[in-house]
Amino acid sequence: MIRVGIVGATGYTALELIKILLRHPDVEITQLTSRDPDCPSLESVHPGLRQQLDVNFSLLDIASFASQVDCAFCCLPHAASAAIISKLLDKGIKVVDFSADYRLNDVGTFEQWYQVEHPDPERIGQVPYGIPELFRDRIKSAELVANPGCFPSSALLPLAPLIQQNIIEPSPIIVDSKTGVSGAGRKPNLKFHFPECNESVAAYAIGTHRHMPEIDQIIARFTGNKITTIFTPHVVAMNRGILSTIYVKPKEGITAEVLQHELAKFYATEPFVRITQQPPTTKDVANTNFCDISVLPNRDLVVIVSALDNLIKGASGAAVQNFNLMFGLTESAGLL
Amino acid sequence: MIRVGIVGATGYTALELIKILLRHPDVEITQLTSRDPDCPSLESVHPGLRQQLDVNFSLLDIASFASQVDCAFCCLPHAASAAIISKLLDKGIKVVDFSADYRLNDVGTFEQWYQVEHPDPERIGQVPYGIPELFRDRIKSAELVANPGCFPSSALLPLAPLIQQNIIEPSPIIVDSKTGVSGAGRKPNLKFHFPECNESVAAYAIGTHRHMPEIDQIIARFTGNKITTIFTPHVVAMNRGILSTIYVKPKEGITAEVLQHELAKFYATEPFVRITQQPPTTKDVANTNFCDISVLPNRDLVVIVSALDNLIKGASGAAVQNFNLMFGLTESAGLL
Amino acid sequence: MIRVGIVGATGYTALELIKILLRHPDVEITQLTSRDPDCPSLESVHPGLRQQLDVNFSLLDIASFASQVDCAFCCLPHAASAAIISKLLDKGIKVVDFSADYRLNDVGTFEQWYQVEHPDPERIGQVPYGIPELFRDRIKSAELVANPGCFPSSALLPLAPLIQQNIIEPSPIIVDSKTGVSGAGRKPNLKFHFPECNESVAAYAIGTHRHMPEIDQIIARFTGNKITTIFTPHVVAMNRGILSTIYVKPKEGITAEVLQHELAKFYATEPFVRITQQPPTTKDVANTNFCDISVLPNRDLVVIVSALDNLIKGASGAAVQNFNLMFGLTESAGLL
Amino acid sequence: MIRVGIVGATGYTALELIKILLRHPDVEITQLTSRDPDCPSLESVHPGLRQQLDVNFSLLDIASFASQVDCAFCCLPHAASAAIISKLLDKGIKVVDFSADYRLNDVGTFEQWYQVEHPDPERIGQVPYGIPELFRDRIKSAELVANPGCFPSSALLPLAPLIQQNIIEPSPIIVDSKTGVSGAGRKPNLKFHFPECNESVAAYAIGTHRHMPEIDQIIARFTGNKITTIFTPHVVAMNRGILSTIYVKPKEGITAEVLQHELAKFYATEPFVRITQQPPTTKDVANTNFCDISVLPNRDLVVIVSALDNLIKGASGAAVQNFNLMFGLTESAGLL
Repeated sequence: MIRVGIVGATGYTALELIKILLRHPDVEITQLTSRDPDCPSLESVHPGLRQQLDVNFSLLDIASFASQVDCAFCCLPHAASAAIISKLLDKGIKVVDFSADYRLNDVGTFEQWYQVEHPDPERIGQVPYGIPELFRDRIKSAELVANPGCFPSSALLPLAPLIQQNIIEPSPIIVDSKTGVSGAGRKPNLKFHFPECNESVAAYAIGTHRHMPEIDQIIARFTGNKITTIFTPHVVAMNRGILSTIYVKPKEGITAEVLQHELAKFYATEPFVRITQQPPTTKDVANTNFCDISVLPNRDLVVIVSALDNLIKGASGAAVQNFNLMFGLTESAGLL
Repeated sequence: MIRVGIVGATGYTALELIKILLRHPDVEITQLTSRDPDCPSLESVHPGLRQQLDVNFSLLDIASFASQVDCAFCCLPHAASAAIISKLLDKGIKVVDFSADYRLNDVGTFEQWYQVEHPDPERIGQVPYGIPELFRDRIKSAELVANPGCFPSSALLPLAPLIQQNIIEPSPIIVDSKTGVSGAGRKPNLKFHFPECNESVAAYAIGTHRHMPEIDQIIARFTGNKITTIFTPHVVAMNRGILSTIYVKPKEGITAEVLQHELAKFYATEPFVRITQQPPTTKDVANTNFCDISVLPNRDLVVIVSALDNLIKGASGAAVQNFNLMFGLTESAGLL
Repeated sequence: MIRVGIVGATGYTALELIKILLRHPDVEITQLTSRDPDCPSLESVHPGLRQQLDVNFSLLDIASFASQVDCAFCCLPHAASAAIISKLLDKGIKVVDFSADYRLNDVGTFEQWYQVEHPDPERIGQVPYGIPELFRDRIKSAELVANPGCFPSSALLPLAPLIQQNIIEPSPIIVDSKTGVSGAGRKPNLKFHFPECNESVAAYAIGTHRHMPEIDQIIARFTGNKITTIFTPHVVAMNRGILSTIYVKPKEGITAEVLQHELAKFYATEPFVRITQQPPTTKDVANTNFCDISVLPNRDLVVIVSALDNLIKGASGAAVQNFNLMFGLTESAGLL
Repeated sequence: MIRVGIVGATGYTALELIKILLRHPDVEITQLTSRDPDCPSLESVHPGLRQQLDVNFSLLDIASFASQVDCAFCCLPHAASAAIISKLLDKGIKVVDFSADYRLNDVGTFEQWYQVEHPDPERIGQVPYGIPELFRDRIKSAELVANPGCFPSSALLPLAPLIQQNIIEPSPIIVDSKTGVSGAGRKPNLKFHFPECNESVAAYAIGTHRHMPEIDQIIARFTGNKITTIFTPHVVAMNRGILSTIYVKPKEGITAEVLQHELAKFYATEPFVRITQQPPTTKDVANTNFCDISVLPNRDLVVIVSALDNLIKGASGAAVQNFNLMFGLTESAGLL
């Protein structure tokens, strides 16, 4: 059994991660940490886990934690995450990081968009980006993987192969995303107070969302091509799921059918990416690690729709997929 | 008091129309028709109206109906609507038509997109399109007004002035719309069965939605310019509201601020269109006749967000605004 | 025009109150107060009101406030409310109080259930309880009215006439209520964070809810009979509405039909209480001042279902009904 | 591997059953039947299952079906179910029946409440009722098990041990249940059309719901005591989950603590029933096979709240639990 610990285990992604790991045949959860000095009981934070797991929250003590785990899943906010991860790596522990700290290609872009000094700048750009379908080989041998952002996952899975094949124009690429409210995290906030977002839909962070440079840089890393995505997130009144509607212009002579065919070919043997004839819905991928993608023409553009569960394929499912690769396990263990 | 009748009064737009008209100081509802031969009681169809209106459903008899109303609101499906409207007009009654029958510029486009023979082809192209902010003068003198589609309303209000001013490129213009489920009507259907659309978001009718030619033709009618909109509707898990996220490319040297300024100027004296600094939400316009619009930059494009209530400003509120103009009443009567 | 001010106008009940008053033919809103020293703009707090009302938030200054209003609606929390109201009354202003401060019959019960010293104990028990259907005459001549709790409104409207007629047993009386989340107010809280209450239903405050003594004491005040209600509130995933399912045992020989008949007789001329054949739904009373009530047999008990909008008939609509009575206006002004 | 077939596999319970069985280590799904003569593809009916299961729908042919399965899960409507089950049993196949056909104690009660002639009256009363926590031994040796109703499961799990212990009064026992909309099945119907039940809560079938005699008869079968439950179901705006709020009167001298203690003792070793201190929520049991139960005092009554997922512990999870027992497998296989 591989012993795992979760750093910052009070939120929604951590809850989903625990549920997946409880089903995983090769894993034992040994540590759950919280930054709340009162260390509430697991049942009071995650009542759905009552009687399922006999581990309570503790404050993070690096030495003690490191002695009890083989792998850490780190669910801390950006900057807080990297500050701890370098210490965990020093102890010889493998880490999957849920934050944005190691996703980008360079520290300058990180500090420009996150407005904070990076605690571990040397590693930026050296850490594999945790979409196994795109970077599997690098993930397999990594000590640290940067788990991808939920919106970037929904954009990169369809876009990366098409840009690599050079069959769509680099501009315009418009990603109009709709996310469930769990994507905003578990901290109460007027914007996500039930009566504020129920019976409503809203765009936010127009032109300023931090996932925009992440999409662009990972495309560049994977394909060598520079693109400038126009990304607009929206929050809709549901708990979980991201639907991204992506508008691209095919290169001269290329049809929607060609784009669909290329994606089908690229993902032919992947267990978690499915190319669909009808536009996918978030309902059909909720609580799963699938990303479903359709490709349909709309006048001179092509509309690609991708759907995934922001907490699973967009976070904790991808994290376990990465973990499986890092430890040489079956990639889909715990995930089907 | 102006006597009004509603043809096809069992659906959601009719219910909202009745609620508005019950508050209207100059209106008496005298007729409600249904195509159901059993003519259910008003309370059984619209329980919320119990004790509020002493009119029951009857089958439509043109002569009898015409003798008891000064104005008809026609809420029938396309083709069924035009078949009746020509007869009502012959009786000297004014009509506001909720269907698509008289919205387009030519019968060929209608028959291509609606796949049915038009029952009254001579009138197509002669009927004012019922967005008062764009076509007020023609509406004032009309016997028949084509009430606009809900998605086109959300797209045309922001786009028409900008294209008229020639400050955005004609292509690409992408309209990514999110609608509440009431937009699909009241007829039960697996797609809109509660567990199918709750906790989900879905794109539909990609490249094939009938509101696409409507947007293009009305832009052409208002501005003389031809555009080809890329329109994609989505259904989200809420009852009412449309949010349209519109991606446009400003002409060389034009900024988002300029676009916003022009819209603010165009709508400066309009009671029902508000230009906002922050992106509007559907919650803030629900149950009102407002359309709120924001304009924000996103890299080399500009993102315009418009929000309206699909049943009010997108249907019944606009209809009453048109009715008020047709009868020389205060335009906002019943609507604030 | 009667000049009104709203004390504590940043919450959901205040927003609904403003919307109603904007439609009221005899009212001018002149003052809106907030306890936030930054006094945000009205648009930033209630974006839906943009361009509808040219009054901004100010801090409450009793003398200045009193010189500009004829009536105050006080939307402060309990204890904070009574501390201010006595001063407003001293200035000769009429007041409708939304808090629980003046609802109960005696200060002892208040201090037992609210665990705070009452700032104005002399007035308790002297203030009319603001359900016009039960206490209209006293309200008409009052300077201060205690606006009722939302759950008590839904229980008292059906129960009071039946207990007065002595046709149901005093025990058991079980009130199982389901409320939308707006009933919890606008302050962010993990319990009402969207992903926590969406797709869920939960009972709370079992045996400890403060509306329990309110129901009992007002029944006693209206009928002279003592009852001990078993009340259990539940929060369901919707914005607004309360459905109370009330289980009563008819006296020997009394049927459900008799109970229904008595309620129909009692409310025969009331504009805002409707007795229905089918169980009412919250959807059909949402955004209205109606309370709908059905009475149906279930074995040896009778099940009464009442439905109202917690923010309207359960709060701001009732408040305007009370205001209308206090100022000699048409009782339904602004409310239909 | 045990070969299983699902008869009537197009609905929500069948979908959940398939998902559970796909995770079950000892099961192979070999047959899925539909009554639709067009036999749509599995992906078109259940898009979430695409690429997960290589079985398509077929029409039921008893001989062919029986040759390919060891166990049938029958998800047909009542009466249709029993007509087929007797034939399947004749072929030597074990059956778990989701319908109400074999749940009651006698054919008279069945025909009175279901208003249809029973196709297999001899078996009624002989078939174990499929709540393993109450009838485990009989289920283990059964060829046919009557899977319980979703509401009865939520009522029987808390009530049966308390009535058996004779520590609550037989009357009144009030079960006020709130269910998600998936409980109404997948067939489109105006009542469950999204805009009709979103933002609403409604009571239905007051005094007439078929689960009322089921609760009473199973209590009688398990305890020998006759009770007459007052049961009222409500539909709330969520997909899945049942919360039952149960009002009971403890026998003289018995407290809520005693009742809680007895339930904790009764379920001490059960993997799927959890006694909680705080009232449970449906969110915390959604997508699981747990039933969570709390016991709290409210004046002279006790309020028991039980929560389960109507599609899992209330249907398909219980069915797999029964299946595991019938085939001598680990009872929780596929369910944790």
